[in-house]
Amino acid sequence: MTKKIILDCDPGHDDAMAILLAVGNPDIELVGVTTVGGNQSLHKVTYNARAVLEAAHATDVPVHRGCDRPILRPLEVAASIHGDTGLDGVELPEPSRPLDEGHAVDWIIDTIMSNEPNTITLVPTGPLTNIAMACRLEPRIVDRVKEIVLMGGGYHVGNWSACAEFNIKVDPEAAHIVFNEPWHRLTMVGLDLTHQALCTPEVQGRINAIDTDLAHFASGLMDFFRKAYQGNQDFIDPPVHDPCTVAYLIDPSVMTTRRCPLDVEIHGDLTLGMTVADLRGPEPSADECNTQVAVKLDFEKFWSLIIDAIKTIG
Amino acid sequence: MTKKIILDCDPGHDDAMAILLAVGNPDIELVGVTTVGGNQSLHKVTYNARAVLEAAHATDVPVHRGCDRPILRPLEVAASIHGDTGLDGVELPEPSRPLDEGHAVDWIIDTIMSNEPNTITLVPTGPLTNIAMACRLEPRIVDRVKEIVLMGGGYHVGNWSACAEFNIKVDPEAAHIVFNEPWHRLTMVGLDLTHQALCTPEVQGRINAIDTDLAHFASGLMDFFRKAYQGNQDFIDPPVHDPCTVAYLIDPSVMTTRRCPLDVEIHGDLTLGMTVADLRGPEPSADECNTQVAVKLDFEKFWSLIIDAIKTIG
Amino acid sequence: MTKKIILDCDPGHDDAMAILLAVGNPDIELVGVTTVGGNQSLHKVTYNARAVLEAAHATDVPVHRGCDRPILRPLEVAASIHGDTGLDGVELPEPSRPLDEGHAVDWIIDTIMSNEPNTITLVPTGPLTNIAMACRLEPRIVDRVKEIVLMGGGYHVGNWSACAEFNIKVDPEAAHIVFNEPWHRLTMVGLDLTHQALCTPEVQGRINAIDTDLAHFASGLMDFFRKAYQGNQDFIDPPVHDPCTVAYLIDPSVMTTRRCPLDVEIHGDLTLGMTVADLRGPEPSADECNTQVAVKLDFEKFWSLIIDAIKTIG
Amino acid sequence: MTKKIILDCDPGHDDAMAILLAVGNPDIELVGVTTVGGNQSLHKVTYNARAVLEAAHATDVPVHRGCDRPILRPLEVAASIHGDTGLDGVELPEPSRPLDEGHAVDWIIDTIMSNEPNTITLVPTGPLTNIAMACRLEPRIVDRVKEIVLMGGGYHVGNWSACAEFNIKVDPEAAHIVFNEPWHRLTMVGLDLTHQALCTPEVQGRINAIDTDLAHFASGLMDFFRKAYQGNQDFIDPPVHDPCTVAYLIDPSVMTTRRCPLDVEIHGDLTLGMTVADLRGPEPSADECNTQVAVKLDFEKFWSLIIDAIKTIG
Repeated sequence: MTKKIILDCDPGHDDAMAILLAVGNPDIELVGVTTVGGNQSLHKVTYNARAVLEAAHATDVPVHRGCDRPILRPLEVAASIHGDTGLDGVELPEPSRPLDEGHAVDWIIDTIMSNEPNTITLVPTGPLTNIAMACRLEPRIVDRVKEIVLMGGGYHVGNWSACAEFNIKVDPEAAHIVFNEPWHRLTMVGLDLTHQALCTPEVQGRINAIDTDLAHFASGLMDFFRKAYQGNQDFIDPPVHDPCTVAYLIDPSVMTTRRCPLDVEIHGDLTLGMTVADLRGPEPSADECNTQVAVKLDFEKFWSLIIDAIKTIG
Repeated sequence: MTKKIILDCDPGHDDAMAILLAVGNPDIELVGVTTVGGNQSLHKVTYNARAVLEAAHATDVPVHRGCDRPILRPLEVAASIHGDTGLDGVELPEPSRPLDEGHAVDWIIDTIMSNEPNTITLVPTGPLTNIAMACRLEPRIVDRVKEIVLMGGGYHVGNWSACAEFNIKVDPEAAHIVFNEPWHRLTMVGLDLTHQALCTPEVQGRINAIDTDLAHFASGLMDFFRKAYQGNQDFIDPPVHDPCTVAYLIDPSVMTTRRCPLDVEIHGDLTLGMTVADLRGPEPSADECNTQVAVKLDFEKFWSLIIDAIKTIG
Repeated sequence: MTKKIILDCDPGHDDAMAILLAVGNPDIELVGVTTVGGNQSLHKVTYNARAVLEAAHATDVPVHRGCDRPILRPLEVAASIHGDTGLDGVELPEPSRPLDEGHAVDWIIDTIMSNEPNTITLVPTGPLTNIAMACRLEPRIVDRVKEIVLMGGGYHVGNWSACAEFNIKVDPEAAHIVFNEPWHRLTMVGLDLTHQALCTPEVQGRINAIDTDLAHFASGLMDFFRKAYQGNQDFIDPPVHDPCTVAYLIDPSVMTTRRCPLDVEIHGDLTLGMTVADLRGPEPSADECNTQVAVKLDFEKFWSLIIDAIKTIG
Repeated sequence: MTKKIILDCDPGHDDAMAILLAVGNPDIELVGVTTVGGNQSLHKVTYNARAVLEAAHATDVPVHRGCDRPILRPLEVAASIHGDTGLDGVELPEPSRPLDEGHAVDWIIDTIMSNEPNTITLVPTGPLTNIAMACRLEPRIVDRVKEIVLMGGGYHVGNWSACAEFNIKVDPEAAHIVFNEPWHRLTMVGLDLTHQALCTPEVQGRINAIDTDLAHFASGLMDFFRKAYQGNQDFIDPPVHDPCTVAYLIDPSVMTTRRCPLDVEIHGDLTLGMTVADLRGPEPSADECNTQVAVKLDFEKFWSLIIDAIKTIG
């Protein structure tokens, strides 16, 4: 049975790869894409989401525009990583499907409430503003969502400060809300995991070998992403964070996980936006703890899923 | 010309008096009442709002239920002041009008966006959760609202801590959002002002003398409120906070005001939820500063407006 | 019987006036002056303290140099108020007495411990760094001190932010320590009081009329201070803060006071360094509450004490 | 040439082992022991330090009593780990040397200032209160100290919260001061390292085999410590934290280290007292960065040093 997901994102080079994986993998039903101000302004990332779906021939997927800024703090974008457009480095196709009507937060609520309980999975790969707002506007969604698998944070690794990751740090209050809701399960796919998802030259060679327009589009994204990570983050190959979430939903064996209490620091000077995982003592049971962190990636399985998806879309 | 207001409240004894004033004064058009968890749980205050409108024969006024808890913090109610029902001390009439459909936040947005710009005034007399959520979901409302006149805070006076007032302290992040939006004008009617709006025995005698069911209802509210304030807050007569906002909109001469920069502390240990007014130096111009605080009440004018409204409703 | 005081200060124009009052009033025995980085660097204020004592012919009074910076935060000086030297506007006499050996904190401890219990009064008029350090190094001093009367803070007034005063704001952690120790009595002489101690032209005329070198020295200080307050703080006449403490010790009727719980905010964004007074409810008894704030100044009594002291010194 | 160290500690079972190593190793000259309220009250840990020196026949080593509580926060002790006495589990010998006169903070300052520059190494193994106070009272010590090697913190591991270690968490402000001073070098030996220094049954067997009174004393300490760590911290064998510092000074090859910016969080809700290490990017040079963290222990070298010291003392 396919998994129904809502991808809440801010494309973003790695968000684009998450969209491709969600569109191209037969086990995923991409119910809709929602957007949030993050890697770039809401206007830009919404256009990007629509353009990536166009490139993936997925014009049946609705796109709803969400919040344009964090709950408490001014918008901070990641132009150093994603460029001025949010998807620098490739030519974007003109979206043929108009932007869908209705605010992302309302659409998320309506979709969850109108589907059977326990059927919709939330996959946020940007700041958690939309999800937090939805939880506050309609608290009943939390119990109806199947699970939430998000890209963000890191239990031992930071990128936007010594110990905080971009998605969480730019809207820590939203993350605090989302991490503390009683979801059936919340999986944090953080930098600890995603820094293993490197697009090496070997991987990129396999993408290039597909030799479709979409493969060259994906490869162009990776070219820019590599340069950005080399120039700004002391990486040789770029970590392709966001599709790790979708890969985990397709095949949980793509990563190991560990259950542990998780929370978000919203008041520290040095630690604002840190995802604090309590890894002391033995692993709690699923009954004791509804949150888990991603630990170790199966590199080969992960990239095979991506490559297969790009091939499948054609 | 009448003023169109949305009363966003959590009745609450003084909220009830604000409803009566809004219903009974001919210069006010009460477009709708929205509710928010605060003085009591959302369920209770929503029922109370409907019951007070019933008591005031105002069944044409829609009531929309809003957020049931603060944005970041757990719900904290003021049962010591308003009792277990939120309107202890009187028998409430059964509301004949069913609760209106649609979330308060959506209804506030729709109402502001579908009315002419600069025609709707927001009058929040509870925690600012709904208004903050509306600002984040639809940022364009801020410029379309005529003005916002809220009960909350205090520049020199606190009641829920040494320097913070209940409405602001229980959802300081919401207040921080609302105080920092570029409204055409925001007027904070805080405890500095409302502690002058005491329901003295002389005032209550005038209410009793009206001798209608509604007057006795209002007087019953004041009896309970007096005892609560005597027992919990070292007051002899109860300060009737919330209708001061509506009174100001009917007749600005009911109070003096002073423009000054205003903000809300969201990180202090002792000062959490304090409304910080910068009163140093000369008063800024309206062009320099869109926020003002209420300073001095015209006691006689204020109570005459209340009493006239109760008489008018009949 | 004279009162033995230790004046812990950072001269500073108004600190200088406090020194003159302590030297010139027969009811005060100035056991020593200690200095702390504050209005200007430790080096400068220590020199200034010695120079003012020289001008006051008080070369028997020891001066001990204390902490050069706040406990946690970098030194922040008030050059806009006191100029580059900390005592701009007058020519300082060369101190004939060498700087006394020994750190101010050690000397404060030794002096308190070697005098009879309940005989030494602490009069801090700068940041509370030295006093806080002494409390931590030798906790027994707190019970041996007669009382502490400090200039700093404000329950409704700020000058270094909307709600914080310079002495407290620049070392809030030190103030937090001092305000929370179980002194027999702590009196906060804050801006609420000291902004009444204005050196009006009439007052300054009376100082000038004394027509001694010292009177002209004091008047020169006031000239500079007036200009600084006119240029930076929207005052017409300068508030002469620090001697209010000494005046209160000479004659408690120089001001009214109110007992209330007092604490210092060390974590707020807007309220850092605010002195939070809980003025709700009736005034607590001296048994219930060891802290009090200064409320109303007897302007005439205050300035008469100053003028008499300048005359007495000659 | 021997290394002159001041051991600033709060014995404490592992502090006791640090004393034994410092006393018994010929490359270390233990100039003095200073005590600080931490694992237990100042009174108890000072007695314990003297008793351990007695047990080690080191009655020539002075012991000075320091601060009895953290700078800002109330004293919090670790009775769950060290028992009611702070050294539960063994019979302590009566100290024959009286407690030395003079406050630890003054003695630390005097010792550093009266020795040649660059000859005294500070080895704090308790809360950093004394060291922080000394830095503020006499800032010149920082440049005169050879280096500081402290037990505390953890860049990825906590024990007193999910991400903070006891010594740092109980006086985070003191730690913040110490970590930010411009020492020639500061080495943080945190839980990342010390959780490798486990007293396994094999190790304890080697200690027992020495078969001296001191060896049985040390083994008795380890028995209690094992039970405490089994009962409270989910450990099988107890981590013997504090002597790792002394071992590193004897032989730097006992551990690997990594230079990185280090700071202490003093304002977080979840992260208070966390030692934040910025491990992003390549390791900075010693010129760029004066702080380093301990990473990997040479287990065999470490325990051999301990065992040799116990043998040497006899």
